[in-house]
Amino acid sequence: MTSPRPIVALTTDFGWGSSYVAQVKGVLLSSLPEATLVDVAHDVPAYDVVAAALLVRDVAFSFPLGTTHLVVVDPGVGTQRNPIAVEARGMRFVGPDNGILGPVLDQPRARAVVLDRPALWREPLAPTFHGRDLFAPVAAELAGGLTLEQVGTPATSFCGSPWAAPERHPDGTRTGTTLGADRFGNLTTNLPMSWARRGERVRVGADEPRWVSTFGDAAPGELVVLAGSNGFVELAVREGSAVERLGRAARVIVLGDGGGDEARGRDHHG
Amino acid sequence: MTSPRPIVALTTDFGWGSSYVAQVKGVLLSSLPEATLVDVAHDVPAYDVVAAALLVRDVAFSFPLGTTHLVVVDPGVGTQRNPIAVEARGMRFVGPDNGILGPVLDQPRARAVVLDRPALWREPLAPTFHGRDLFAPVAAELAGGLTLEQVGTPATSFCGSPWAAPERHPDGTRTGTTLGADRFGNLTTNLPMSWARRGERVRVGADEPRWVSTFGDAAPGELVVLAGSNGFVELAVREGSAVERLGRAARVIVLGDGGGDEARGRDHHG
Amino acid sequence: MTSPRPIVALTTDFGWGSSYVAQVKGVLLSSLPEATLVDVAHDVPAYDVVAAALLVRDVAFSFPLGTTHLVVVDPGVGTQRNPIAVEARGMRFVGPDNGILGPVLDQPRARAVVLDRPALWREPLAPTFHGRDLFAPVAAELAGGLTLEQVGTPATSFCGSPWAAPERHPDGTRTGTTLGADRFGNLTTNLPMSWARRGERVRVGADEPRWVSTFGDAAPGELVVLAGSNGFVELAVREGSAVERLGRAARVIVLGDGGGDEARGRDHHG
Repeated sequence: MTSPRPIVALTTDFGWGSSYVAQVKGVLLSSLPEATLVDVAHDVPAYDVVAAALLVRDVAFSFPLGTTHLVVVDPGVGTQRNPIAVEARGMRFVGPDNGILGPVLDQPRARAVVLDRPALWREPLAPTFHGRDLFAPVAAELAGGLTLEQVGTPATSFCGSPWAAPERHPDGTRTGTTLGADRFGNLTTNLPMSWARRGERVRVGADEPRWVSTFGDAAPGELVVLAGSNGFVELAVREGSAVERLGRAARVIVLGDGGGDEARGRDHHG
Repeated sequence: MTSPRPIVALTTDFGWGSSYVAQVKGVLLSSLPEATLVDVAHDVPAYDVVAAALLVRDVAFSFPLGTTHLVVVDPGVGTQRNPIAVEARGMRFVGPDNGILGPVLDQPRARAVVLDRPALWREPLAPTFHGRDLFAPVAAELAGGLTLEQVGTPATSFCGSPWAAPERHPDGTRTGTTLGADRFGNLTTNLPMSWARRGERVRVGADEPRWVSTFGDAAPGELVVLAGSNGFVELAVREGSAVERLGRAARVIVLGDGGGDEARGRDHHG
Repeated sequence: MTSPRPIVALTTDFGWGSSYVAQVKGVLLSSLPEATLVDVAHDVPAYDVVAAALLVRDVAFSFPLGTTHLVVVDPGVGTQRNPIAVEARGMRFVGPDNGILGPVLDQPRARAVVLDRPALWREPLAPTFHGRDLFAPVAAELAGGLTLEQVGTPATSFCGSPWAAPERHPDGTRTGTTLGADRFGNLTTNLPMSWARRGERVRVGADEPRWVSTFGDAAPGELVVLAGSNGFVELAVREGSAVERLGRAARVIVLGDGGGDEARGRDHHG
């Protein structure tokens, strides 16, 4: 499943320019000198499992088949959380089982193992740096051709995505939540576009943002809703910031094409 | 024109560690697994066309011949601005036609095309993410060996550099402007060193900075003028910040070797 | 000593996304198109020789044998400091002789040369940018197979590490200092773990932190001491910041297993 030059993509909260990222790369290249290393992010906010899981959700499957993703945001390093590897949709993932790999474990036919083969790890294992001593060596082995079963033992109970699932309600409405923003202030949500149609009424707080195709279609300062390029409902403010306006945990309601009188009344007169 | 391992250099305002950069890299490597990807910058200030064009001016031609530069700072994504590709001095460039490629279009014998071949793009094209769905696939095709004419249609009217050209005046003086600063506070300008000789009197605001060869030749706190390593007149304050002192749009006057009495008078007594 | 695809690791204070880093990479790839370039850091605080030397100490020897490290934090660029190259433990290093390579020069059997072969450099040499015009070309030559003696002239007097050495005292205590922190606020020191045993009494200011194996073993807010993954004594505050609590130049005393009455008295009653 690996390409001639294996690709390892790195997502951590170690900090750009930290000694930790460089040590991980040194270890990977020591095992696998021909690897192409791709930095996804090293500035995930420290210990922020939600932000890391969002990156995994939005990035992982854009990579070539066979890519190995090393994902380490690990507040519990050296304690009881399990180190795991996952295979889904032709990619492999290595990291702690704390929710950051939830979006991958949710994929159809995802398989996962607990990493329990110390012979593959660096010796001695630093209790504070499994990224270098455990996850990087295992990622190198997977990128180099080992199977999931050669690096760990199958298991079935893992942490899911660190956010609530969206909900469908009897009246046809669907509810979700904003999850995180990009540097432009645009907010992604947990509502896949398969749950909403362009043009359906959407409510966030007191707003009923208009659907647009792209940012330039909005008026300056206008809150709009659009189909995010990641396949999820997105909220944006042109020349402004949706995250400043709404925050990271705003409830998003898809009311449907018409919307009830009650909803409309609240919206226009409230 | 491409080297055995094609090089794609990336300049964007997507943000280091954003999902957008990683998706673009995933798309590039999916088409061109053997490519060497080089991050030029992903922290161009959001929508800052001047900053992006400065990076292009100062960086592009240090790369090996055959490099493909993907440059995406695109406030008008999905609206009427044209996506283009440019070839100049043995390099190719892909990005929106909003001025960021002006310094390349200004090169002798630069050629450019409008990208109008949707068959080369990702389907469906996300209206908010041409970086991933249009520019990256075209960059991969150019890096992989297609010609400019195979990815678009020649055209002749494009946006130039997003700053004023320097001027020569009848009295022999030349005027320009500061454009942007590096992290040390040193200011570059639009005045090429071919327009100024070391030792000529230079005025910026009320100052007539002394020419030095390198920063260490200045006194602490002294504003000095020097030949920038990019070939343009540069202003620096040792152990200080020229950009804090002068700002990004300060007028720079090259007065010449002697300078008129009027100028000298204004300088010393004004 | 080089691998089939030479690796060049880059550590600078040029700034992520600066034109300087990109130009250096362009120059390296122009000489050595097959090189793997690894960014260690470009956000070393401007001119911070201590921070750069710490990165070198903690990172360099995790890389594959044969790696060439380009390390440029160079407040004295273009003045009298010497450009040098060093070989130690199967790695090469290129940079200014201002202390940033001290941790390498301290290695057993380290050899060093002064770079004095302008024929290898870019012409003309910009006095403000030896990173691009002198260090990068020499790094490319070393990575491409030249020996130390082919790029410079052996010398013996160089700048050591830019921090005091730890000390052993007649009463058995050892003293050192905190040096720098990671993004989690954890402080590394100049005390190698070979100078301290887990469980020995350690004092920093008024605190006698408890030894733990990993961060999760500490109570929230507790200052603890641990064996850093870099092999040096480390101080951490769980869910807090050791560097905010102690600063970068705090004296660290290893008192030993028992500790004298005097020490204990001072500690508990002082």
